[in-house]
Amino acid sequence: MSPTPDWVKALKPSGPQGTELLAAERARSNIPVEKLSELLFTKEVLEQKQNILNILKSEKVFDKSQNYYAAREERFETALARAKKLANLRKKHGWTLDEYRTATDLISEPGPYGLHDSMFLVTLTEQGTPEQHELFLKKAQNYEYIGCYAQTELGHGSNVRGLETTATWNPDDKTFVINSPHLTASKWWIGSLGRTANHAAVMAQLIINGKSYGPHPFIVQIRDLKTHEPLENIHVGDIGPKFGYNTMDNGFLLFNNVKIPHRNMLARFSKVDLGTNKYVRSGSPSLIYGTLTWVRSNIVMQAGSVLARGVTIATRYCAIRRQFQDRDAPEWEKGENQVLNYTMVQIRLLPLLAATFALHFTGKAMMDLYAENQKRMNAGNGNDTSKRGPGPEETQSGSDILADLHASSCGLKALSSTIASEGLEACRRACGGHGYSSFSGIGTWYSDYLPTITWEGDNYMLTQQVARYLLKSARSVLASQPPTNDTTRILTDFRARTDVGCAFDILHSSTDLVAAFAWRTSFLTFEALKHRDDQKKPWNDLLVDFYRLSKAHSQYMVVKSFHDALESPAVTSQTDAETLDVLKKLFWLFALHTLEQEGSEFYASGACSKHQISLARTNAVMKLLKEVRPHAVRLVDSWAFDDWVLDSSLGREDGKVYEDLFHRASVINPLNRITVDPYPNSDVLFRKIEGEAKSKL
Amino acid sequence: MSPTPDWVKALKPSGPQGTELLAAERARSNIPVEKLSELLFTKEVLEQKQNILNILKSEKVFDKSQNYYAAREERFETALARAKKLANLRKKHGWTLDEYRTATDLISEPGPYGLHDSMFLVTLTEQGTPEQHELFLKKAQNYEYIGCYAQTELGHGSNVRGLETTATWNPDDKTFVINSPHLTASKWWIGSLGRTANHAAVMAQLIINGKSYGPHPFIVQIRDLKTHEPLENIHVGDIGPKFGYNTMDNGFLLFNNVKIPHRNMLARFSKVDLGTNKYVRSGSPSLIYGTLTWVRSNIVMQAGSVLARGVTIATRYCAIRRQFQDRDAPEWEKGENQVLNYTMVQIRLLPLLAATFALHFTGKAMMDLYAENQKRMNAGNGNDTSKRGPGPEETQSGSDILADLHASSCGLKALSSTIASEGLEACRRACGGHGYSSFSGIGTWYSDYLPTITWEGDNYMLTQQVARYLLKSARSVLASQPPTNDTTRILTDFRARTDVGCAFDILHSSTDLVAAFAWRTSFLTFEALKHRDDQKKPWNDLLVDFYRLSKAHSQYMVVKSFHDALESPAVTSQTDAETLDVLKKLFWLFALHTLEQEGSEFYASGACSKHQISLARTNAVMKLLKEVRPHAVRLVDSWAFDDWVLDSSLGREDGKVYEDLFHRASVINPLNRITVDPYPNSDVLFRKIEGEAKSKL
Repeated sequence: MSPTPDWVKALKPSGPQGTELLAAERARSNIPVEKLSELLFTKEVLEQKQNILNILKSEKVFDKSQNYYAAREERFETALARAKKLANLRKKHGWTLDEYRTATDLISEPGPYGLHDSMFLVTLTEQGTPEQHELFLKKAQNYEYIGCYAQTELGHGSNVRGLETTATWNPDDKTFVINSPHLTASKWWIGSLGRTANHAAVMAQLIINGKSYGPHPFIVQIRDLKTHEPLENIHVGDIGPKFGYNTMDNGFLLFNNVKIPHRNMLARFSKVDLGTNKYVRSGSPSLIYGTLTWVRSNIVMQAGSVLARGVTIATRYCAIRRQFQDRDAPEWEKGENQVLNYTMVQIRLLPLLAATFALHFTGKAMMDLYAENQKRMNAGNGNDTSKRGPGPEETQSGSDILADLHASSCGLKALSSTIASEGLEACRRACGGHGYSSFSGIGTWYSDYLPTITWEGDNYMLTQQVARYLLKSARSVLASQPPTNDTTRILTDFRARTDVGCAFDILHSSTDLVAAFAWRTSFLTFEALKHRDDQKKPWNDLLVDFYRLSKAHSQYMVVKSFHDALESPAVTSQTDAETLDVLKKLFWLFALHTLEQEGSEFYASGACSKHQISLARTNAVMKLLKEVRPHAVRLVDSWAFDDWVLDSSLGREDGKVYEDLFHRASVINPLNRITVDPYPNSDVLFRKIEGEAKSKL
Repeated sequence: MSPTPDWVKALKPSGPQGTELLAAERARSNIPVEKLSELLFTKEVLEQKQNILNILKSEKVFDKSQNYYAAREERFETALARAKKLANLRKKHGWTLDEYRTATDLISEPGPYGLHDSMFLVTLTEQGTPEQHELFLKKAQNYEYIGCYAQTELGHGSNVRGLETTATWNPDDKTFVINSPHLTASKWWIGSLGRTANHAAVMAQLIINGKSYGPHPFIVQIRDLKTHEPLENIHVGDIGPKFGYNTMDNGFLLFNNVKIPHRNMLARFSKVDLGTNKYVRSGSPSLIYGTLTWVRSNIVMQAGSVLARGVTIATRYCAIRRQFQDRDAPEWEKGENQVLNYTMVQIRLLPLLAATFALHFTGKAMMDLYAENQKRMNAGNGNDTSKRGPGPEETQSGSDILADLHASSCGLKALSSTIASEGLEACRRACGGHGYSSFSGIGTWYSDYLPTITWEGDNYMLTQQVARYLLKSARSVLASQPPTNDTTRILTDFRARTDVGCAFDILHSSTDLVAAFAWRTSFLTFEALKHRDDQKKPWNDLLVDFYRLSKAHSQYMVVKSFHDALESPAVTSQTDAETLDVLKKLFWLFALHTLEQEGSEFYASGACSKHQISLARTNAVMKLLKEVRPHAVRLVDSWAFDDWVLDSSLGREDGKVYEDLFHRASVINPLNRITVDPYPNSDVLFRKIEGEAKSKL
């Protein structure tokens, strides 16, 4: 590309400038951005984040300027370099796990150590014995062993019991033989496995004396520690390019009767007795369900901020982008209108802005509940529960908080990751044509986030667990058992008022609005119970009902959590009246918009009248859009994303959208180093390639 | 990557094999696939397509095996080579424009000649005088001039009147000066411009004697015909990577007072008189609206087949993929269940399968209407209309078909491309984890299709045009003008029955079902009219209502077109009773599922009772899913996609899903040629790169 000519350098965007427009936006609202950020994250966390950000920015390897242009191999190479640097920085600065996670969050791309740092270490820690910690965990923490968690197979995703890989106990030499009997037994999608790991925690069917004992975890070395070549009888590699997540080497893995010693079966909860060659349970794995609950609660917690990136970008850009005049604007009003002033843009964007806060407070409530429950269990209170067996969805009385927490985490994981992923795409589209450019910063972020709707329980599958729990709860209510948690409480309330019905003032009372969500959930629960228990409908015929039920219940939980948060002293004591007022408007917007979207269910349940739903849409929501609009930019500012993190032309804090788009396109873009021969009668394709770019082709 | 060991080569997927499962699916239905394909496309078209496909497959340049792995520069290079080859093949085989388009459709990726072949040639043809055809068109047809259509600017998308690029008439030397006064005036997103074109049809504000006459088209040479370097005072390049469409070089373009001769303003409809230096209209550009209508109708026509690719892939794969057992299945039933048997999968996939047919027949009806209208206009009937001025949405009486066609094409373009794009993503997700792999074949296809929802009228913007037309129509009905087309007819019917109401038997009579859709549209139209004309609500406050109205009207048109098609002799005479029965079930499924999704509007309009809507969901739709299910694979087979075209592991006609995924991952995947050094204490990243891959890094 020829250097930018002077006459181009002299060009500016036509006025008003993005910088001026954003300044005007910020002048329209009094929300104290920093205070609100502190409410969301605490001052300490913000400072910590800033310190780490400064360290990252000063390291050349984290420079993002080539990210959007690089091919897969380059991106992976860079990601590996970043992962190494990060491990070294952690050591150097003595970062806690939390700080290390903050750093990876700030880098915002999956890295080749991702599954080593999380599932491999967690599995070793939780399922290994102290001797195994000595053997494997220490080396893993030290990156001598780099591992992955090899569960999913080519032919088996969600259904862990159907895994085909076998670990057969050989009593003669006291070893396990790991084997892949079919092509579909190939481990697949395993993060960090494709090129990086030298060890794997392999989930395989334990077979002793011809009998299968179900999937168990085994530590298997897969690559040579010196040469990093695959060991004999192991076939391993990367599974190829994906819709996103291409900085990660998701891998495949096949075993041809690979022998591993007895000590490589993680034995905290079960093992093969060396003397008797018998299977022995040595503890209950229900703690693992606790981990899954934690992982899902974390997804809920993150969903708000995941979505907030897209909302920040789209809101800022829609305040800068101007198209057409308002049709009803007076003749003398010549300028084009900010896109954010159009109600059709507001209705797509502002409820998502409200959702970021709703999800944030819901995630926080989930994490608090989780912490509280851990405390209880550690205090011995819940230890007996953990011995109860197959999984918390089977338990009911006794540890109702645990069961409730499990079901909530399933339903909220599904709902929140769906809201976040679909919301991000809505944000991208709200940016119009430029949303399609990589420089919008939304596309890659969205593509990388998408697996979240499938992993840790597919969002559709999970809804069955929520429904199962709600049916159980409803049965206990029908059996007149006293309520033990919020779920049984709302079901009991509903039953008590079935005859008299309800009369919620959803347009004026926020508690009534929350109650209307509870009412709809309860109605759908007892409907589903009737179908299943009275009408004996097949489970499969009810899956769609269950999906709706789970969604309804999860929406109730979000609305309730958001409402409770805004009433809590933790929030009210830290927030000035005006900000609290705007936050409450966000609550109303989120709740009423959701209610209107699901109008027919609210109406069918009797929670609201047709007239109320219609008013919610035409009056209340439209009015709230107008009221929230002036605060939009300050509200997204309070999410406190650094420009370096957003890496977006459209979402720049200073509003220099067009300058940045132009710079990235014309100055950095490597395709412009190539001069083509465009004529069909010539076989030459690239005539000239400037600089180093040639070697990349 | 080490060669595949023999023990791996010997592995097969665990049974039942995909091939067996698809064979069993095909055995469950009697739909004559070939006959149905012929009904959709005609025998002639299918044969033509097959001939072209054979030619393409025999050319090495069209080999797709590296597509999913290649970096942007490589992909663009290959796309350019393909474009050249295609131009040469066209010449060699004497392909018609239609055949050439078929070839590009089969290749299924945007190419660097894309905008030259379409908008550049169309603009020259339609807006050039015979002399200009001689000057520019011939060379363009011969690829001596390779062009693009430069309208959109960095700061201006949909609002063409706001373009900043100027073309100032200089009466002294009889030239135009093309200039970009601001950075935001830079042409942006222009297909084929970035690296390929040497000419551009530039839309610029014509300025004569200080007065602006609005945007007009000018032909500007931008690159040297020999060196292909940009000409002086022109800054041009590629705009960088995008969410998709990366085989195309969308470009930017800035002018620093570039002089072009008088003959370079396309002068069929207006020009600057050389003698008087005055602006002269020499015809009406309303024909151009005809072209836009044609382009939009084409998008409707394509939407069915665009979506059908995703539905084909997902349906076949969901028939092969098995997960879990049916909860209610008897104990002895050990095997896992085909995912396609779960109602939660059916409800996501089968209405989309129905939508492919609905959109196909709607597109066909649009194209027929368009052709009929062209015939009328050519017969002189409509020529007077073309003189009427600014645009067809302003006309009402007289050429009602043209206005109706314009509005229909806007509404249906928005609805059908939304259904197709969102449907593709739903298909990708229905494939579970493997849907995320590039080898699913859906991701790239979806990403490349996405711009369709923004271009040729943003899908949200377009709904205003539909609403405006419906409001006009409603006003004419209120003024007791007799109906002149289907829109005024349904509005008149509604008015006539407002007092008595309706009683549609939507669950048993298909004509009643169509009538219910008409009723809802009419209801919403008069509601919107009341808000605008009686209550004088601001236009901006009604945008959300207009969006809903346009969607409702477009859904009515799709349902009606599908219904009419299945009643038409063209279909009934060619279709056996069983197939017709299945097609009718698809109609019912599409219509009732849509109705249920929009339940609250149907209910609010009085078109159906709450009970009917509830029955539609819990009984009718669920029953239809069961009835359509056995025919699903044969129905997607009838779309007749060749495996080469789909390029999907999951959608293979022979069902060898796992073998193909494995082959692409382990044998082709270039990342596996790289051996990394994974340890953080080493600065080495890539230790070893096999074969040629090294040069690519």
